[in-house]
Amino acid sequence: MKQNLIRACTFGLLLLLASGLVNAQSADSLPSWNDSASKQAIIRFVEEVTTAGGPGFVQPAERIAVFDNDGTLWSEQPMYFQLAFALDRVKVLAPQHPEWKEKQPFKAVLEGDMKTVLAGGEHALVELIMATHAGNTTEKFAQTVKDWLDTARHPKTGRPYTDMVFQPMLELLAYLRANGFKTYIVSGGGIEFMRPWAERVYGIPPEQVIGSSIKTKFELRDDEPVLVRLPEINFIDDKAGKPVGINQHIGRRPIAAFGNSDGDLQMLQWTSAGEGARFALLVHHTDAEREWAYDRKSSIGRLDKSLDEAQAKGWTVVDMKKDWKVIYPFE
Amino acid sequence: MKQNLIRACTFGLLLLLASGLVNAQSADSLPSWNDSASKQAIIRFVEEVTTAGGPGFVQPAERIAVFDNDGTLWSEQPMYFQLAFALDRVKVLAPQHPEWKEKQPFKAVLEGDMKTVLAGGEHALVELIMATHAGNTTEKFAQTVKDWLDTARHPKTGRPYTDMVFQPMLELLAYLRANGFKTYIVSGGGIEFMRPWAERVYGIPPEQVIGSSIKTKFELRDDEPVLVRLPEINFIDDKAGKPVGINQHIGRRPIAAFGNSDGDLQMLQWTSAGEGARFALLVHHTDAEREWAYDRKSSIGRLDKSLDEAQAKGWTVVDMKKDWKVIYPFE
Repeated sequence: MKQNLIRACTFGLLLLLASGLVNAQSADSLPSWNDSASKQAIIRFVEEVTTAGGPGFVQPAERIAVFDNDGTLWSEQPMYFQLAFALDRVKVLAPQHPEWKEKQPFKAVLEGDMKTVLAGGEHALVELIMATHAGNTTEKFAQTVKDWLDTARHPKTGRPYTDMVFQPMLELLAYLRANGFKTYIVSGGGIEFMRPWAERVYGIPPEQVIGSSIKTKFELRDDEPVLVRLPEINFIDDKAGKPVGINQHIGRRPIAAFGNSDGDLQMLQWTSAGEGARFALLVHHTDAEREWAYDRKSSIGRLDKSLDEAQAKGWTVVDMKKDWKVIYPFE
Repeated sequence: MKQNLIRACTFGLLLLLASGLVNAQSADSLPSWNDSASKQAIIRFVEEVTTAGGPGFVQPAERIAVFDNDGTLWSEQPMYFQLAFALDRVKVLAPQHPEWKEKQPFKAVLEGDMKTVLAGGEHALVELIMATHAGNTTEKFAQTVKDWLDTARHPKTGRPYTDMVFQPMLELLAYLRANGFKTYIVSGGGIEFMRPWAERVYGIPPEQVIGSSIKTKFELRDDEPVLVRLPEINFIDDKAGKPVGINQHIGRRPIAAFGNSDGDLQMLQWTSAGEGARFALLVHHTDAEREWAYDRKSSIGRLDKSLDEAQAKGWTVVDMKKDWKVIYPFE
């Protein structure tokens, strides 16, 4: 009896789906997007790959979409949010490190002298990351990130950093998932910095977050197994590292990729060079009033080569100012 | 109209599920298992973590189960199947490497002198892996693996290697998935060696395969992006590397782990030390007639420390000979 009921219902639902009466999610799944060429291109692509029997149909298992994080899903100005975390951690940890008062780049951080910090270049930033991200167990670090997000506030908006995500992109993530896509983050940011909150904020579970990492080491501490974070780079998930990270974690080539900077160029190249329907999109930060406006000359999130290639290859370029009705969920 | 039909059907199915009339999968999902303590322990654990409202209930998203591959899901004698692949590749590639005729360990491979090959120890094996697994693109390598599996035959059974998977473990994988588990491979074997067939054979998609790897490099070749496999170790997913690989790929601690050797010890420790209901199982190769019998003194798949720890901690130990009605699907 119950078997028959299940069968009848399943059959009925399948019929409805097959007959096209049930469209998974349609245009109004993107209410914060103006009806621009960008929005139309997204919808056209999703309809193409989900139309059973159509020339562009893609099996659900192959519907992999990859998203950069900084500048693509949330803001990245006036500095990467993870750097703000690292600077705050230097202040918290300073009492245990009296030597930092005399040692750069820590001295400059403690004195609030950001010019000197940034003048130290990549080397200084790596030192800051190592000193503030290593030395703990993976579980303690995740808790530290959560605690920081609970209290830290963005200098311009006064909001928690996780409020500064892009409402149109949240809708896009949900729209893709409603159409059978598996959504991944592929970020130059730290994998363990994003995982503690990516599921709550983006609906992306930890196993679908790919990022840069430091090495970890398995240890038994008083018979208790722990993973200890070491001050040693494991993987940089940026530029040519992004396709490498994608292959390592997913083992399939995505069919859609979303970025905003030159750090995403190779990810978009790798994604769009596959066979069949492909989609590549860049978020162009053009809204100095509601967010920030920057591109070819910015030191953060520089968009130069990728913008040229988008024009040459016909990738979709979102004009934040024109294409998005709202930027943040709290507006 | 269609909305109402969908709602009614969904509601009806939910009611059936909630009323317990539909049990996801029960004991007879494991028909190749004798009704032993091992089988009962598996079923007890699955019922515990899936009983809504019960003390051991685990949300589906956290139902992560990790499986070693060699010796746990398929056989590993008389040598790891990936080593058989590497040896065959040496023979295929030899015409392009005339120097191999005089150079160990290649010379010994070409002469069929396995004693000398194995006498070279780990260093010789790494050399063989590098020479046969690197130098190509990721896509060409996947095709090479598939082509080899189509034609290679196991020296004892004369069967394709992918036939030599354990029927009881296939049932266990399906049983766990039917109960909301996500099943992962966590193997010392090569991640790119397993991915091309793991979905077809085990129902495990590429993004749920974790293994050892060599480095890859993104390149544009005539404007075509490729990932090239380099002769350089990236990660060894064995022993203390297994929890590291699990954390890197999944970012959650599994609640169930399945292995067969000392290479799985840390994975089982890491898994079983988490909070709440946990399950750890070892496959003990005790059946010299239908498969192989080996444990504490075997150079392949040595089971010594893990066996002691299983006894001390009450982990489940499968006695292949007594617990499994059949070994392989083709029996």
